[in-house]
Amino acid sequence: MNNPPRVTVWNEYLHEKQNEDIALIYPQGMHAAIAAHLQQAGFPTRTATLEEPQHGLNENTLRETDVLLWWGHLAHEQVSDDVVERVYQRVVRDGMGLIVLHSAHFSRIFIRLMGTTCNLKWREAAEQEKIWTVAPGHPITRGLPECIQLEQTEMYGEHFDIPAPDQLVFISSFAGGEVFRSGCCFYRGRGKIFYFRPGHETYPIYHNPQVLQVIAN
Amino acid sequence: MNNPPRVTVWNEYLHEKQNEDIALIYPQGMHAAIAAHLQQAGFPTRTATLEEPQHGLNENTLRETDVLLWWGHLAHEQVSDDVVERVYQRVVRDGMGLIVLHSAHFSRIFIRLMGTTCNLKWREAAEQEKIWTVAPGHPITRGLPECIQLEQTEMYGEHFDIPAPDQLVFISSFAGGEVFRSGCCFYRGRGKIFYFRPGHETYPIYHNPQVLQVIAN
Amino acid sequence: MNNPPRVTVWNEYLHEKQNEDIALIYPQGMHAAIAAHLQQAGFPTRTATLEEPQHGLNENTLRETDVLLWWGHLAHEQVSDDVVERVYQRVVRDGMGLIVLHSAHFSRIFIRLMGTTCNLKWREAAEQEKIWTVAPGHPITRGLPECIQLEQTEMYGEHFDIPAPDQLVFISSFAGGEVFRSGCCFYRGRGKIFYFRPGHETYPIYHNPQVLQVIAN
Amino acid sequence: MNNPPRVTVWNEYLHEKQNEDIALIYPQGMHAAIAAHLQQAGFPTRTATLEEPQHGLNENTLRETDVLLWWGHLAHEQVSDDVVERVYQRVVRDGMGLIVLHSAHFSRIFIRLMGTTCNLKWREAAEQEKIWTVAPGHPITRGLPECIQLEQTEMYGEHFDIPAPDQLVFISSFAGGEVFRSGCCFYRGRGKIFYFRPGHETYPIYHNPQVLQVIAN
Repeated sequence: MNNPPRVTVWNEYLHEKQNEDIALIYPQGMHAAIAAHLQQAGFPTRTATLEEPQHGLNENTLRETDVLLWWGHLAHEQVSDDVVERVYQRVVRDGMGLIVLHSAHFSRIFIRLMGTTCNLKWREAAEQEKIWTVAPGHPITRGLPECIQLEQTEMYGEHFDIPAPDQLVFISSFAGGEVFRSGCCFYRGRGKIFYFRPGHETYPIYHNPQVLQVIAN
Repeated sequence: MNNPPRVTVWNEYLHEKQNEDIALIYPQGMHAAIAAHLQQAGFPTRTATLEEPQHGLNENTLRETDVLLWWGHLAHEQVSDDVVERVYQRVVRDGMGLIVLHSAHFSRIFIRLMGTTCNLKWREAAEQEKIWTVAPGHPITRGLPECIQLEQTEMYGEHFDIPAPDQLVFISSFAGGEVFRSGCCFYRGRGKIFYFRPGHETYPIYHNPQVLQVIAN
Repeated sequence: MNNPPRVTVWNEYLHEKQNEDIALIYPQGMHAAIAAHLQQAGFPTRTATLEEPQHGLNENTLRETDVLLWWGHLAHEQVSDDVVERVYQRVVRDGMGLIVLHSAHFSRIFIRLMGTTCNLKWREAAEQEKIWTVAPGHPITRGLPECIQLEQTEMYGEHFDIPAPDQLVFISSFAGGEVFRSGCCFYRGRGKIFYFRPGHETYPIYHNPQVLQVIAN
Repeated sequence: MNNPPRVTVWNEYLHEKQNEDIALIYPQGMHAAIAAHLQQAGFPTRTATLEEPQHGLNENTLRETDVLLWWGHLAHEQVSDDVVERVYQRVVRDGMGLIVLHSAHFSRIFIRLMGTTCNLKWREAAEQEKIWTVAPGHPITRGLPECIQLEQTEMYGEHFDIPAPDQLVFISSFAGGEVFRSGCCFYRGRGKIFYFRPGHETYPIYHNPQVLQVIAN
């Protein structure tokens, strides 16, 4: 009955240009890999990156975006006040969805919306992660097994300093014994925010069909 | 078993100096009225105001404060970045309690902690407010009737743009038919925040024993 | 992309047969009035009533029902253990949606799912109700004004003894000054439950387009 | 300022009488071990068991109980309707606290209060459990490290079919990679319920000072 939501995938797009190993995994950047999948799944999708004017997120683009994906790591501080404010208004006032991926827990827009430090524990050890569904009726989990297993990931551990999620969807465990609330929904103003943990730049996670399924849902 | 929490009552303290009618109700300021009651109830209490150096909230004072009450209206923008940051850190990192009163829904510290606009609807009409308890087992409601009635208040109405409270304690109705989530608990980092609606500057609300009872709880 | 959910409207269907005034408002019963609207809105809809074998809710019917609406008042105790159990399993195990209307707050299935007494305060006084949206981004509120006004309703007041809703969508005020959490979402097992207050048997509420809009959403 | 809460520790007390190995760990029963600790910590504490008349929980005992601990496993179905009803009323109507331990997730009183099946996954493999705090400001976590480690426990895994907790305090990981929401607060009526996972009958968990600290908090 409804048109599919229009998606924009934002990526700071630095790792892929600075590091050959990462470039091999994501030759056109992570944003391109994610966007290709979403396009194929039927969502009109575009991309935007830090280096573009206004980081590729001018008024027009945002007005035509129903869901914005955000990936950042090295350059959170380079995102301009104007763009943070524009994305913020588009979420709380207009109800745009925002999907915050992995290390974007420290992005300016996520910290602003959460009101907390968004600190967490981490360790880069290429260890196994198991992502368990704790909300099996939630639409985000549709078509997924009760556990998604990723063989080599960076560890993120509690305490993750966020407000209690309005809905907690996934909890991860890591080979080292840590746990992490890795899929969290928040309602802020008219908008819906989904934080989703998987996605380190050196692992080919955004080629994993189950991870892509979560994002599509 | 425990020592009673040490309280600091912060007030911008402008209305009372600018308006004779308000000065008659609160001759030493709202902060003094609230502090006197809390002192009497057994809490070591001090006060702080906007005009003092560092708004009366230097490192030392905050370190010796377990619960901070905040009342502001005219001069939210005059509160310095440093003090907002210091209060913020003391809440999320050290677990200080923060009670945000009435028009302080627009204070910089509350907006920062909520991550939303904190907009609401309002009308100054000296109308009746009924404050209903929706969480009768909550410690904040101890010793209170199911409904607190205030004869003349300013109206605040929904939609109140806050995150869903971690615990919703009070809902108000107004003579005009509006409703408002007037007692809301939030957990942020290690801290606990309680927003409590009553308290317009021109009504003698902080002399009402039931309102004071809520604050003491 | 998806098929519209298949709906079954259940009604104990006693008032309409026992009372001429009510029969005038709902000549074929409330269930028929609601079902006609939903059918028109594009949902494949059937009805079921207490007097039918198995109250019209056999295994087959439930298996073909994605959302069940429940209206009851006089005869909660006449609903059989078997049917309660069957509906319960269909909600928590299979994820059927359940919309609980008005006086069905005391239905056996709702009390079982909530785990609380579901008590509330009430008064039959044909008074005005204002239903305010407190979650403007929620899909249930789509296309609705910020306030729905019903001219003559029975009053329901707090304290409403339910668990804190997973999402609070509507709060009502009444001419007498009471408030009520009148639109509440709960997740239980795989199922989603929505309690919606409006709907007394002697008022033509299920002919109100806005109330019907809420149910359709 | 307040008197310490009066505690009753209830145990079905069957394992300890049927199995010598368990009797060696808890010669007077688990209830006695827990009660001794709580008594020492300053709480007036008594015990009650299944075999006593009315399972040791008559009107009088419950009226003098502020917090009830519940441990059961083999004999949930032997607990009488009357006692379940009495405990239930004492929780939702009078606000008695209820701490539900380990396998008591399947006790009749817990299922009644939750309204869900309370199913979970489990495996008896004497494996390591790490219990992580996700709510560091919560009073239950006072004086605890960020992680409690238990060397040999039974595994409990998600999906745990409970309503979303009003506050999620602990998440466990197990050596096998499973996760579990192992410390959960629920408000029901006037009462407060805390589910706490640790405590299998064959492991000396209720001699662990950190576990006892959680219960005391």
